[in-house]
Amino acid sequence: MTSELAFVDALRRMATHPAARNFDDDCAVIEIGGEALVLTHDMMAEGVHFVSWQDPADVAWKLVATNMSDLAAKGAEPVGVLLGYQLRERDQRFLEGLEEALAHYRAPLLGGDTIAGSGPQVLGLTAIGRATHRPVPARTGARPGDALWITGPVGAAMIGLEALRSERGDSLAYRRPQALLAEGQALAPLVTAMMDVSDGLLLDASRMARASGVALSIDSAAVPLAAPEHRRDEALRWGDDYQLLFTLPGEVAPPVTAWRIGRVLAEDGVVLLDGAPPEGGLGYEHG
Amino acid sequence: MTSELAFVDALRRMATHPAARNFDDDCAVIEIGGEALVLTHDMMAEGVHFVSWQDPADVAWKLVATNMSDLAAKGAEPVGVLLGYQLRERDQRFLEGLEEALAHYRAPLLGGDTIAGSGPQVLGLTAIGRATHRPVPARTGARPGDALWITGPVGAAMIGLEALRSERGDSLAYRRPQALLAEGQALAPLVTAMMDVSDGLLLDASRMARASGVALSIDSAAVPLAAPEHRRDEALRWGDDYQLLFTLPGEVAPPVTAWRIGRVLAEDGVVLLDGAPPEGGLGYEHG
Repeated sequence: MTSELAFVDALRRMATHPAARNFDDDCAVIEIGGEALVLTHDMMAEGVHFVSWQDPADVAWKLVATNMSDLAAKGAEPVGVLLGYQLRERDQRFLEGLEEALAHYRAPLLGGDTIAGSGPQVLGLTAIGRATHRPVPARTGARPGDALWITGPVGAAMIGLEALRSERGDSLAYRRPQALLAEGQALAPLVTAMMDVSDGLLLDASRMARASGVALSIDSAAVPLAAPEHRRDEALRWGDDYQLLFTLPGEVAPPVTAWRIGRVLAEDGVVLLDGAPPEGGLGYEHG
Repeated sequence: MTSELAFVDALRRMATHPAARNFDDDCAVIEIGGEALVLTHDMMAEGVHFVSWQDPADVAWKLVATNMSDLAAKGAEPVGVLLGYQLRERDQRFLEGLEEALAHYRAPLLGGDTIAGSGPQVLGLTAIGRATHRPVPARTGARPGDALWITGPVGAAMIGLEALRSERGDSLAYRRPQALLAEGQALAPLVTAMMDVSDGLLLDASRMARASGVALSIDSAAVPLAAPEHRRDEALRWGDDYQLLFTLPGEVAPPVTAWRIGRVLAEDGVVLLDGAPPEGGLGYEHG
């Protein structure tokens, strides 16, 4: 166990309040005044989550979109955001991207903090949402017999990042990921479990499997791809696509465009790919 | 105007939602389900807000206390916090300080994010509180004729930091600042304006004066000191003491220990010290 995992485990043991779900991995849900408020905080660091030559407007967009995607997985609508910003040069481009993203997601800027500081830039965003349906969807509810669905293709961000690095092709999917707020709200009353796929389909599916105490059996060929077929194995492990992964009772049809990619089995906490544990692992666990 | 101020001004122009108060300077207040939720986010960077040789347990305490102090100024009780943590060595001591501070303030850890990354460490904390009285106190309500009060002495953190640096004397006030949650809740129904003094009495008083559109006239000799008398001028400009600064109608006595240090005059947005603009400025504006 690495130091990072030990640290996160310690935080998880500390986060025992009913509103806390799973530290570093899921939103908090606060019941207040008869409403359910959904809270999430994501950080991004230069050199880890973005590189210094990226357009700060794209960095701002991604910071907003990743947090909005957390809200989407809860079927929540944005109430607003708090920004934590470490000042740098080219701040104007960051502001432009931030304003564009917040307008796109109708998430008002409510407050935050700016700080000085040298070294790689670190950014934080807290998103506050209001659940549109209760109980609030969680990753814990998948039941044997459910079908497993995904809202769209994986691999788009992988191809987009390559396009950005090579300066050839369309990098939009990597630079401007789309959080599926409307889809999450439409799905919330129907799903037994839901989460967004931020770290890769197989890794995130394993988290849902563990949280629900079930096996998720994925039919590899059924997963829609936004990458060449020969890169299917990579695309199943690549993150940053922000599709919604969800389970529905066997005969329920989703009210949004989605692909049925597998089913839920009564085994404990594993992902099966075409009937077996995935060869080559689940993907990359990053910070 | 520095780039930092221009950036913060741009964020303020962007933060027009009724829940947004004053970006980088005040909590957001969300009305939801008949309750008022108070939200604040503070960041701390190594080399700016703390130094690498400090005990991470003290850094964690301060990160929590600064955010709790923001809630205190709103008369709010803590609902919980979200932590943004950049992983480092000696993380165990940070955890110990975090747990101690959260237990002290009865603020459960609800979630957050951990990230990798080299360079100076950056930390963020989002605190969520529930207002115990409405309207929620703000820094905008001071009226001519009100008296100006402070809950306790200034200069304690200044002396504490010197003790820590010299390894002589008591550094507790700097290392473990106290957020005055109970005092804030007791004062909330009575005050016309309230804020916490985090950046120095004169500077923060000038913010209240500007926000309220009044002059705050401070009687220098009436300000309680936790430093030698010959350092009074410094102590009036030193931050990190987290006392509450508030205004009350002339004849209202505060329900908590407090010192009457001045009065509110019908001039616009200035601080007067013994009847004149403070010689030597208001203090240091930091990030």
